[in-house]
Amino acid sequence: MGQESQDYQNVDDVQNNRVDDEDPNQKRKRGEENEEEEEEEIVSVEKLFAKQQVPSWTRQLTFRAFIISGLLSVLFSVIVMKLNLTTGIIPSLNVSAGLLGFFFVSTWTKILTKSGFLAQPFTRQENTVIQTCIVASSGIAFSGGFGSYLFGMSDRIAAHSSDTADTKNPGLLWIIGFLFVVSFLGLFSVVPLRKIMIIDFKLTYPSGTATAYLINSFHTPQGAKLAKKQVKELGKFFSFSFLWGFFQWFYTAGDNCGFVYFPSLGLKAFQNSFYFDFSPTYVGVGMICPHIVNISVLLGGIVSYGLMWPLIWNKRGDWYDADLSPKSMNGLQAYKVFIAISLILGDGLYNFVKVLGRTLCALYVQLRQKDNEGILPVAEQASPSNSEQLSFDDQRRTQLFLKDQIPTWFSAAGYVGIAAISIATVPHIFPQLKWYYVLVIYLIAPTLAFCNAYGCGLTDWSLASTYGKVAIFTIGAWAGNSHGGVIAGLAACGVMMNIVSTASDLTQDFKTGYLTLASPRSMFVSQIIGTAMGCVISPSVFWLFFKAFPDLGEIGSAYPAPNAVVYRNMAILAVEGTDSLPKYCVLLCGVFFAAAFLINVIKDCIGKQRARFVPLPMAMAIPFYIGTYFAIDMFIGSAIKFVWEKINKAKADAFVPAVASGMICGDGIWTLPASILALAGVKPPICMKFLSSKDNARVDKFLGLS
Amino acid sequence: MGQESQDYQNVDDVQNNRVDDEDPNQKRKRGEENEEEEEEEIVSVEKLFAKQQVPSWTRQLTFRAFIISGLLSVLFSVIVMKLNLTTGIIPSLNVSAGLLGFFFVSTWTKILTKSGFLAQPFTRQENTVIQTCIVASSGIAFSGGFGSYLFGMSDRIAAHSSDTADTKNPGLLWIIGFLFVVSFLGLFSVVPLRKIMIIDFKLTYPSGTATAYLINSFHTPQGAKLAKKQVKELGKFFSFSFLWGFFQWFYTAGDNCGFVYFPSLGLKAFQNSFYFDFSPTYVGVGMICPHIVNISVLLGGIVSYGLMWPLIWNKRGDWYDADLSPKSMNGLQAYKVFIAISLILGDGLYNFVKVLGRTLCALYVQLRQKDNEGILPVAEQASPSNSEQLSFDDQRRTQLFLKDQIPTWFSAAGYVGIAAISIATVPHIFPQLKWYYVLVIYLIAPTLAFCNAYGCGLTDWSLASTYGKVAIFTIGAWAGNSHGGVIAGLAACGVMMNIVSTASDLTQDFKTGYLTLASPRSMFVSQIIGTAMGCVISPSVFWLFFKAFPDLGEIGSAYPAPNAVVYRNMAILAVEGTDSLPKYCVLLCGVFFAAAFLINVIKDCIGKQRARFVPLPMAMAIPFYIGTYFAIDMFIGSAIKFVWEKINKAKADAFVPAVASGMICGDGIWTLPASILALAGVKPPICMKFLSSKDNARVDKFLGLS
Repeated sequence: MGQESQDYQNVDDVQNNRVDDEDPNQKRKRGEENEEEEEEEIVSVEKLFAKQQVPSWTRQLTFRAFIISGLLSVLFSVIVMKLNLTTGIIPSLNVSAGLLGFFFVSTWTKILTKSGFLAQPFTRQENTVIQTCIVASSGIAFSGGFGSYLFGMSDRIAAHSSDTADTKNPGLLWIIGFLFVVSFLGLFSVVPLRKIMIIDFKLTYPSGTATAYLINSFHTPQGAKLAKKQVKELGKFFSFSFLWGFFQWFYTAGDNCGFVYFPSLGLKAFQNSFYFDFSPTYVGVGMICPHIVNISVLLGGIVSYGLMWPLIWNKRGDWYDADLSPKSMNGLQAYKVFIAISLILGDGLYNFVKVLGRTLCALYVQLRQKDNEGILPVAEQASPSNSEQLSFDDQRRTQLFLKDQIPTWFSAAGYVGIAAISIATVPHIFPQLKWYYVLVIYLIAPTLAFCNAYGCGLTDWSLASTYGKVAIFTIGAWAGNSHGGVIAGLAACGVMMNIVSTASDLTQDFKTGYLTLASPRSMFVSQIIGTAMGCVISPSVFWLFFKAFPDLGEIGSAYPAPNAVVYRNMAILAVEGTDSLPKYCVLLCGVFFAAAFLINVIKDCIGKQRARFVPLPMAMAIPFYIGTYFAIDMFIGSAIKFVWEKINKAKADAFVPAVASGMICGDGIWTLPASILALAGVKPPICMKFLSSKDNARVDKFLGLS
Repeated sequence: MGQESQDYQNVDDVQNNRVDDEDPNQKRKRGEENEEEEEEEIVSVEKLFAKQQVPSWTRQLTFRAFIISGLLSVLFSVIVMKLNLTTGIIPSLNVSAGLLGFFFVSTWTKILTKSGFLAQPFTRQENTVIQTCIVASSGIAFSGGFGSYLFGMSDRIAAHSSDTADTKNPGLLWIIGFLFVVSFLGLFSVVPLRKIMIIDFKLTYPSGTATAYLINSFHTPQGAKLAKKQVKELGKFFSFSFLWGFFQWFYTAGDNCGFVYFPSLGLKAFQNSFYFDFSPTYVGVGMICPHIVNISVLLGGIVSYGLMWPLIWNKRGDWYDADLSPKSMNGLQAYKVFIAISLILGDGLYNFVKVLGRTLCALYVQLRQKDNEGILPVAEQASPSNSEQLSFDDQRRTQLFLKDQIPTWFSAAGYVGIAAISIATVPHIFPQLKWYYVLVIYLIAPTLAFCNAYGCGLTDWSLASTYGKVAIFTIGAWAGNSHGGVIAGLAACGVMMNIVSTASDLTQDFKTGYLTLASPRSMFVSQIIGTAMGCVISPSVFWLFFKAFPDLGEIGSAYPAPNAVVYRNMAILAVEGTDSLPKYCVLLCGVFFAAAFLINVIKDCIGKQRARFVPLPMAMAIPFYIGTYFAIDMFIGSAIKFVWEKINKAKADAFVPAVASGMICGDGIWTLPASILALAGVKPPICMKFLSSKDNARVDKFLGLS
């Protein structure tokens, strides 16, 4: 699993800090890396495993591992795709990937052993290989931009933006082709730097470390027992959530039917998007995300749909043409989209500056240190008491990590080769994206990839989507309106995001591999295979959604794909400027941009203890555009976790992630049969409709008369 | 509480055998009375309580006891009334009455003690007084016939029968008057016989004994602790159930709206009344009733609405006029009502014969024995090893039971006096019921009251409703059509039922009092006060329902009051015979009457072990008329209990009754605010409607166009 969380944290960076809540084995707060390293040395994990032989890197790559990875990749791609297209908030699925991977392989091994077939024992290295492969594969479902830049090019999304001319509709083949030529570059760009990051700089990679802890714990006897219990819990909620999805389906004949439109807080609140939509997915997401994320989302909903939009709606005719439909990008919709963008950009810019600053500072110290004293990790510097000698764990890990090398010439050749192919082919897919734009991106990308991998190692915060946005603005403005700047910007975003995102992923994987004694070579191969799988699986899953749900991308539908509109409008903004926006929109955007920036400054100034209560502007932005309903779901998830923690903290820590994963996976996998039913034209038989008392009287009369 | 279960078992005798499941302290099967007596003597309960002084009978009757009784009487009257008017199946509320009574008084005592007021300690005798009072009071809600004979007289019910002329509409004042003149007779009729029943015959009275066990256990330290836990559980489900009722209310604007019409098994199944109606009450009822009752009810639903009614519906035009509405008593409705009546009468007749036979046999043996050997209880006979000496418990109980006497002249004078008033006034209320009918009833009643009290002591099966049906048929036929036989029969049923039902109740109470050392005198006074309360509370509660829900008694409404139609049609049958029934209806009735009789014969022949799997015809009859939806609820309750028992039997035994009571009470008490809202004209704001895919498309078009 490993880097999954990294990837998903990218999704507009909402999940920042989330790893703190993810893994009971790894309760480290950001910035405490140095103290944590100490703890790690107190109990030697590797002494526990000393008797187990580490298989050679080729034997870590088993057939069964890739079969299981393939199956789970489909599962997680579906889930990630669903999340992409509903709200764009994607929680870390590390734990569930870990649990399920462990469960499947250990079941497989047990069955084969029992039935007399010779089965290779299941090692933690193999487990790491599976995680890596699943993460690489389902990571494409995010970095492929199906909920953001790629889908933002389509006619359907263009209809909700102010530029409807410059479009490119999704096509299964060109998407697969595009992903194949851009997704492998990131891998090659950071491979040569893995020793510096992991061994020399000793970067933390909280998510990768958490994953490694989890995998290590699974392969101890108690760990396996707990894992079995967690899997049982996951399975229970998986079934519940799947059956609930199935049950709900029957009542969704027609638009606005079913539990998704249940006005659980009343009709007035429903009209302002305040209602519980009975989605186990988002209740689960709320259980996994830290409380502050959930509260931020709810707060965002209250500020926007509870307060601002009703007020701005009252200004219609004054601030904008009253005759415009509420969905017009010259009316209320413009405020929704652009204020959300401002929040995202304000937060993004702050974090970009902050993480880049920290990265450069640390790098500077590191390099000066290295010149002076040879190899000495950052962590060691900060805790000088520790600097005398490497622990047993570190020695053994370092030894195995350095055993299997990947030659630098190989990665350099790989990068240049793939870049050349890419420069030649991408402009054929997007004629608006000239070959020299791509060349420029590929020249800058390795540096940014390194920055992102390094920053992520320090802060667990991947800025892939921020780098993507930078690409939108620079390339979009460069291409200009007359040369299809919108598509050029969005495509550039895709190229950039894929490189930067996979770079930090792979480095996370290396950290996990380092801590579980998996060979870097097997990690690399697994990531390559996983990426290749993802390049086929993700577009196919997207295609299934695209064909099965004709209202994909429509506001108010089950799959509004909010980020697609946001990304497209960013590109339009880059190309056209702010002239077409309604009155005071730019002013409000400025206010919210500044507010997002300021909130972050305040958060960093008031100290960790109080910063916990400061909302995250990035999380607040999402309900600005799509509404509050999922915030209610997440808040309920948060409340469940809160109460559970109050009742029994230890049990909650062990089982909340399993329960939440079960709910997310079950609901997610139900979308597979649901979309197949939709494709086959099977219509649900019943509509559960909610009518006001007045409408109901009319309908009763109508039905009675007819 | 005590006799409550007795009363509710009367409700068409469905709850027969139920006491087996009620009380963990009292797991006796019917017929095992004799062995059970042995167990009772092994551990002396009274030695545990030896240090506690028994308060004098006047001090057992405290002010707080009657305040609490009054409050809980209202609660239970509302619940019983709701059950009367929805399905007529009323589970034993013993346990919840016991728990709540204990909870309130012990809280009251604690608060007063803490706040410095001198509070009398809470004794088990006082607890028994409270139970008795609540049972007497809320028993009227059943024996008052608000769901059966009394409401069966009204215009509204008459509209669903074949005789619409002979009616008397409910009126608050005449109902209170009627209840006052008929409800006290039963009390006086059995008071002189209490020593024979309890001390000499040593009858078991399973429900009364169970209640006594519960009360005794509450007043031991461990018992109080468990009771507190149970009350907590009850409270939790009470709140849940109440809030759920509140939540549901918002979605019930208009007819056929809300969760009650949720086609949870599909529209086709819904049309045949197969659906889960989300009623915590009936899920709770299902949890309290034995599995076989729930399965019988479901089976009845499957046989009738799943099989027979659709088939008979297909015969329309052949067996009956196809143009008749489905609700006409000359069409399909006739089959529904009369086949249900046949089942009830077949089962009732068998049990009448059986219980009466056993009663007379036992009585004969008893009296012969008494002549030969002096006082020797039945139980002792059957287990001769025990006959040497009375145990400590029995000695102490007998001593206290005989201490406070109620003179025979007092009860005789009471009976004659009230009977005289009654004979004079009842014909004024129902002119059709001539004074000599009443006189005849009062001459026979004491014998029947004795029979019922004795039979109930043996079998825990009160036949009050059966005696009532006998009165309908005899007096109805005697009065004849031209003299208002329908009303005469129904009124006679009321007079008879009130006497017979209270007689067995009071004797049960005496048994409880005997086992908890409560004085017969305090029992008697408590029952008098409780009855007086009930004569006011029950009609008031009924009046609230009657005024608040204008569709009370309509088929398909929330309150169909099924037994009202059944009772009225019995009376019509008695008066008019079977001529007006559609084709083959009499034949089918005969078949089902015989089947009900036969099933009982088989049940008694194949041995206890296998008899557990034979369905109860009485329970099968109810869905024949009103449909299967509540059977689904009850089945779910049964399934929950079954699973819980499989997981943890001890915990299930201790908490199932508490959870079920909580669900029943919460939902029941919600009807109070609901009816007040209805009276105040507050309409729910939303309609949750279920439309077929086709209808939905039309409605969407209609709403869109308008």
